Amino acid sequence: MTDKSQPSTTRRGFLKAGIATGGAIATGGAAHAAQEPDPLITEVQPWAQGLGDGVDAVPYGLPIEYEDDVIRRNVEWLTADTISSINFTPIHALDGTITPQGCAFERHHSGAIELRKEDYRLMINGLVDQPLIFTYADLERFPRENRVYFCECAANSGMEWAGAQLNGAQFTHGMIHNMEYSGVPLRTLLEEAGVKPEGKWVYVEGADASSNGRSIPLEKAMDDVLVAFKANGEALRKEHGYPVRLVVPGWEGNMWVKWLRRIEVTTQAIESREETSKYTDTLEDGTSRKWTWEMDAKSVITSPSPQSPIKHGPGPLVITGLAWSGRGSITRVDVSTDGGKTWATARLAQEGQDKALSRFYLDITWDGSEMFLQSRAMDSTGYVQPTKDQLREVRGLNSIYHNNGIQTWWVNAKGEAENVEIS
Amino acid sequence: MTDKSQPSTTRRGFLKAGIATGGAIATGGAAHAAQEPDPLITEVQPWAQGLGDGVDAVPYGLPIEYEDDVIRRNVEWLTADTISSINFTPIHALDGTITPQGCAFERHHSGAIELRKEDYRLMINGLVDQPLIFTYADLERFPRENRVYFCECAANSGMEWAGAQLNGAQFTHGMIHNMEYSGVPLRTLLEEAGVKPEGKWVYVEGADASSNGRSIPLEKAMDDVLVAFKANGEALRKEHGYPVRLVVPGWEGNMWVKWLRRIEVTTQAIESREETSKYTDTLEDGTSRKWTWEMDAKSVITSPSPQSPIKHGPGPLVITGLAWSGRGSITRVDVSTDGGKTWATARLAQEGQDKALSRFYLDITWDGSEMFLQSRAMDSTGYVQPTKDQLREVRGLNSIYHNNGIQTWWVNAKGEAENVEIS
Repeated sequence: MTDKSQPSTTRRGFLKAGIATGGAIATGGAAHAAQEPDPLITEVQPWAQGLGDGVDAVPYGLPIEYEDDVIRRNVEWLTADTISSINFTPIHALDGTITPQGCAFERHHSGAIELRKEDYRLMINGLVDQPLIFTYADLERFPRENRVYFCECAANSGMEWAGAQLNGAQFTHGMIHNMEYSGVPLRTLLEEAGVKPEGKWVYVEGADASSNGRSIPLEKAMDDVLVAFKANGEALRKEHGYPVRLVVPGWEGNMWVKWLRRIEVTTQAIESREETSKYTDTLEDGTSRKWTWEMDAKSVITSPSPQSPIKHGPGPLVITGLAWSGRGSITRVDVSTDGGKTWATARLAQEGQDKALSRFYLDITWDGSEMFLQSRAMDSTGYVQPTKDQLREVRGLNSIYHNNGIQTWWVNAKGEAENVEIS
Repeated sequence: MTDKSQPSTTRRGFLKAGIATGGAIATGGAAHAAQEPDPLITEVQPWAQGLGDGVDAVPYGLPIEYEDDVIRRNVEWLTADTISSINFTPIHALDGTITPQGCAFERHHSGAIELRKEDYRLMINGLVDQPLIFTYADLERFPRENRVYFCECAANSGMEWAGAQLNGAQFTHGMIHNMEYSGVPLRTLLEEAGVKPEGKWVYVEGADASSNGRSIPLEKAMDDVLVAFKANGEALRKEHGYPVRLVVPGWEGNMWVKWLRRIEVTTQAIESREETSKYTDTLEDGTSRKWTWEMDAKSVITSPSPQSPIKHGPGPLVITGLAWSGRGSITRVDVSTDGGKTWATARLAQEGQDKALSRFYLDITWDGSEMFLQSRAMDSTGYVQPTKDQLREVRGLNSIYHNNGIQTWWVNAKGEAENVEIS
């Protein structure tokens, strides 16, 4: 643990404002040394002189216009078109753990379709006693669960295998979101149909043109998988699979089939395009890792980061980020300011939840010199997030998916941050 | 506990779909007895024949147009204008516990103002060692917390004191929302300024024309109050106090001052308009209850309810609702289908969280006859939600605020629901 990691018991020395006698008032904070009267304090401002908007102004509200940079972004050169593409959650600008649906990342294989509840059907067929078809209204009649889970694309941080490429946490780690889902356990629906003894897998597909079929072992399907129709309390957004998507806790996002249309019980995995030529990791010798469903423990510092530079001088600084594990809950996150030479244990905002994002903070006194910021997650299985070099040693350089290596931001004396790699 | 409360071990008898040989397929569910082939299953649908939207379509997304009735609503006759008014969360259409900001209720006293972060100042003055002024950037440098809390207007269900008035859970109980807040403990800022020994209260006010000043005992201010700048991960919406609001867990919403501008440490309560002529409960003898900050344990069934009728015949039915307590966590919710004669204990979706919404479910087999639905919350202090008559016995009929009485929905054989009162 470094000295830098020790928060000062009082921040007053850094964040002081003198309120002089006679109405001369100074603004607060290390960045505000001016002793001039502040008209924002001494004068009645326009917004206190009149009336604001009524409660009929926005029946369904959007963020205020001053926040119009906190949006999903895609990277044009990453894919040939925007239909079969990705955009990224602005994690550099968010706090807490819940991701609002409006800025939660998207990944489509043939675009986001529009499908009315009235037109929705879910079929369960294959090795079942009784094939079943459910309408949306049918699904609403089964006992429901509510759980918060993260969803991470297997390709999140994929560009970073070959070294620092994308300059910003949104782009390096933004293929993740974390929402509270309401839905029916898939187990309940499978039990309704009655799985035959020879049924060992389910094959799930969506109603869009890509269908995006994936195989899931029956054991997982009967465990914590949800057939979800709400996220953060409200209907799924179109881009997240309205009206029904699969939630496969802790497993790669590609398996969370959107616009869920069919579940077939089978003896074997189907070995579809999405689980052979795609979503597998090609190793150094040309073979591929098979069944890499679980997302290993990972973390990233969201601020400071390239899109969220330090805008003040030396003194108190909040370092914050996200950590998660597809194999359990986050038990600890360490943060380094010197590129991994020394580490300080960060504060988890809440006790780690199973397969959900954890927010961590490290409150330091920044001395104004450059930093190499890193975070390192540990989960309830005892696993420790590896360095990128440790990953490469095992997996080589041919991979796109499942990069959970430690990320480095270089922060210069001006507070600007850059995606770098150090060995 | 009634027999009705026992969920059937299998719902197959009610939710069965026959898939006939030769491709003739029937739709599932009790409401779908037709044996005709369903073109939604047998024919390739338009949404599977082409491409959907690309990931650049909605940088910040809104709900799909089919959900355009899931919005905040105001009641025109309730207030003289919409500037100093209320709208209501569509709780009848939501599930889970998190309320998206876009449909979280609003209450303004002089409208929702627009205030840039750059123009934001927070002053702490009065009985402190060092008066302080903070910019938004200053606040970001203090250690932060994340917590999920409900915010309920003291007037929620207020119209119901005089009997069933408003037909829908949105209108009777929709002045509530539940979000994950990120912010700085007020305690930290007060400690920064240094509270003098004679300081026993804080007076908090907003930057809007109403200023909406309220007094809070120092003990609460030093406990769990947050100076919050994010809700559900992103910036507060304009209508919820962008850029900074006070979060006063478990206490009436009026104290959660929006556009927070000043905190004065005082010896006594200020006894402002908002805590004397308003937000007090006038008793039968004309005197008023003083300091009614905490929101007592309460619950409501959100579905079925007048805006969320049963749309199917007898058989499996999910009864669901919300429960909360400003004094702790929800430990149990009972549901009655016969107007309080018999009760069944509902299932809590998650263990109750301190001063946050709990979602409950009761999965029953509805026999198709009329029901008088009620829910009754219990909290970690041992308190049991009272009937409206029990409340009236103590408080009389002059009150507007703090009605936490048990709500009744009459559901007829067609599944339609109505707000009624039974004694």
